[in-house]
Amino acid sequence: MALIVQKFGGTSVGSVERIRAVADKASVAHRTGAQVVVVVSAMSGETDRLIALAKNITPRPNPRELDVLLATGEQVTIALLCMALEASGQRARSYTGAQVHILTDSAHNKARILDINGQRVRQDLDTGMIVVVAGFQGVDKKGNITTLGRGGSDTTAVALAAALKADECQIFTDVDGVYTTDPRIVPEARRLDRLTYEEMLEMASLGAKVLQIRSVEFASKYNVPLRVLSSFAEGGGTLIAPEDASMEQPLLSGITVNRDEAKLTVLGVPDKPGIAAHILGPIADANIEVDMIIQNVGADGTTDFTFTVHRNDYDRALESLEKVARDLAARGVEGDNKIVKISVVGVGMRSHAGIASKMFRALAEEGINIRMISTSEIKISVVVDEKYLELGVRTLHSAFSLEKSST
Amino acid sequence: MALIVQKFGGTSVGSVERIRAVADKASVAHRTGAQVVVVVSAMSGETDRLIALAKNITPRPNPRELDVLLATGEQVTIALLCMALEASGQRARSYTGAQVHILTDSAHNKARILDINGQRVRQDLDTGMIVVVAGFQGVDKKGNITTLGRGGSDTTAVALAAALKADECQIFTDVDGVYTTDPRIVPEARRLDRLTYEEMLEMASLGAKVLQIRSVEFASKYNVPLRVLSSFAEGGGTLIAPEDASMEQPLLSGITVNRDEAKLTVLGVPDKPGIAAHILGPIADANIEVDMIIQNVGADGTTDFTFTVHRNDYDRALESLEKVARDLAARGVEGDNKIVKISVVGVGMRSHAGIASKMFRALAEEGINIRMISTSEIKISVVVDEKYLELGVRTLHSAFSLEKSST
Repeated sequence: MALIVQKFGGTSVGSVERIRAVADKASVAHRTGAQVVVVVSAMSGETDRLIALAKNITPRPNPRELDVLLATGEQVTIALLCMALEASGQRARSYTGAQVHILTDSAHNKARILDINGQRVRQDLDTGMIVVVAGFQGVDKKGNITTLGRGGSDTTAVALAAALKADECQIFTDVDGVYTTDPRIVPEARRLDRLTYEEMLEMASLGAKVLQIRSVEFASKYNVPLRVLSSFAEGGGTLIAPEDASMEQPLLSGITVNRDEAKLTVLGVPDKPGIAAHILGPIADANIEVDMIIQNVGADGTTDFTFTVHRNDYDRALESLEKVARDLAARGVEGDNKIVKISVVGVGMRSHAGIASKMFRALAEEGINIRMISTSEIKISVVVDEKYLELGVRTLHSAFSLEKSST
Repeated sequence: MALIVQKFGGTSVGSVERIRAVADKASVAHRTGAQVVVVVSAMSGETDRLIALAKNITPRPNPRELDVLLATGEQVTIALLCMALEASGQRARSYTGAQVHILTDSAHNKARILDINGQRVRQDLDTGMIVVVAGFQGVDKKGNITTLGRGGSDTTAVALAAALKADECQIFTDVDGVYTTDPRIVPEARRLDRLTYEEMLEMASLGAKVLQIRSVEFASKYNVPLRVLSSFAEGGGTLIAPEDASMEQPLLSGITVNRDEAKLTVLGVPDKPGIAAHILGPIADANIEVDMIIQNVGADGTTDFTFTVHRNDYDRALESLEKVARDLAARGVEGDNKIVKISVVGVGMRSHAGIASKMFRALAEEGINIRMISTSEIKISVVVDEKYLELGVRTLHSAFSLEKSST
């Protein structure tokens, strides 16, 4: 018998009507013969309401007590969902994080799951019940209530699926799956039937904010098949699962865009050991995160050192660099915050060397100048002028025929 | 070191400001050197809000899930109160009913406390913390969340006080203690410094709705000294404690009034065994509760049988009696729903026979006709016409000099 874990976020349980709709979805799955566990978040707005209550008491609430407070949000949802299930003739039982022994460390407000004892859930499932579990919360080994931080309900669902050895963990969201690229840029963008964890991680971190990165990592670690589905529309969604060796992989899965970057270059720095640390040290000290870093082979004993930061940090980074440049007797500092990063992602490129050249050629044919290049095993990213964003993405989407199904 | 349990109801924690005031009261007690445990209810309105949510889902919510839902009410309060305590520099820790192992039976929505393990609370108290416990809720032996029913927070407080062998259980309410009678009727009514459990039970069941009867029974069973205090005013309140043999007891503690009764009489029924059951059987079958029952010695082989019911049940009871009267060939049925019951209560009357005659004489001197009389060990109740309510209570209050302190 199949065992499915379904997760519904705050918007999906945001009203009595929507809770009833979630009950219907769970019942439908149950009637197909599957065992069903449902993980839910607090109703949308509830967590913010509770935080506002706490902030009315004190600007810096005690973290342990904030968890006690916030955990009530999901507790309300699990009770209401079970009532809706029972009212529709379906047997159901709710569990808080503590009741189902979602053991976490004691890092209040951002706890990590250590272990889940699935025995009690399994017993209920075996009697034909739908089991409803509060997401986002757990309990430490002393019995204190903890929360996993925002988005933690995804992690709860994946962890439960792993503990129960579920056949699938279905994450219901407000989109109906993962697309080859942003459909607002490329109307021909196609919903992907399947992705690997690695691809999803690259897609997520590059801006396709469908799933929490942590939950994808968790799913990957325990080989839990994840499916992204819409709460509001029908459809099979996108399955995120281990690479299937028997299938021919498409070369590329998708194209992502990051509009939030800015680029900085220190020109003509002495090409000797320790330079990178010297330049990036003050940036790190200022708590500015660096994304791409490029240093070309130098000529005449000097080199140009380029990196990207979040656009919000651009001014602070520039200021910091000007001081560094003087110290290093560099030729100068250049910056540009009108750039975007476009990346192509796909496990297929591991076995196919031609992707990069095809990508660069396609962009060149449209007269798009590439300002920076960075690669990983399953991703190639280029930085181009902001004005080329739409043209660049459309060109690549078409060049790699992503609008056509690979199966 | 003294150990005090303080209980604050929904009105006392109904807003952020009031929660801060509760934190102050607990801190003041703590600064006197006492160990302090605080039991709180849900913020006023919160339980009704949650019930409305449930009723929106289904008219008859699953009882187990209703408890999961309602238990969030107090959980919010304990977290906010601990935040307020911590923000004021006081160390504090909250516990849900489940966390502090308030073990109950599995009767959802009206569970009874079976046991409390006070160990964890005691450990925290010994480190100087104020411990805050959610009232009204517990956990059954399978780990299911239960609630004790409305007013259950009083019971939680008393049970905790018993388990911790507390020196006093302080119930903060919107009145500043228990009075000799209703001050709206007798402006000279005096706050009592001290009452026995038995007196409080008679006072409570007769209409002085300051404390839940169940919590007084519980306190009596475990000899927990209870103190009724105002959340909003200063003052020592009323102590409810075991009878103090070393003190001279006042004859009477108070006078209570019940306006909700109606009186019914079956006239001229045959005076033979089984008559009472024959008359009251149909009343019980109709789920009508009977309060006082009087049957006088009969003359000429017949007797009159009189009893009182709640006024809301008067019409139904009358209808049922008319049928019974025909079956029994009784002379007829009489009823009166314009009556009140006035009772004098006091453990002192055990050792003083003159109370009843003094009571009846005082009423007679004012021309108040007594329609029924009923007595218990520490109480004498009379039924009089409704129009004599104020006059009767004032006459008795003055006759027994209740306006004067006995100490």
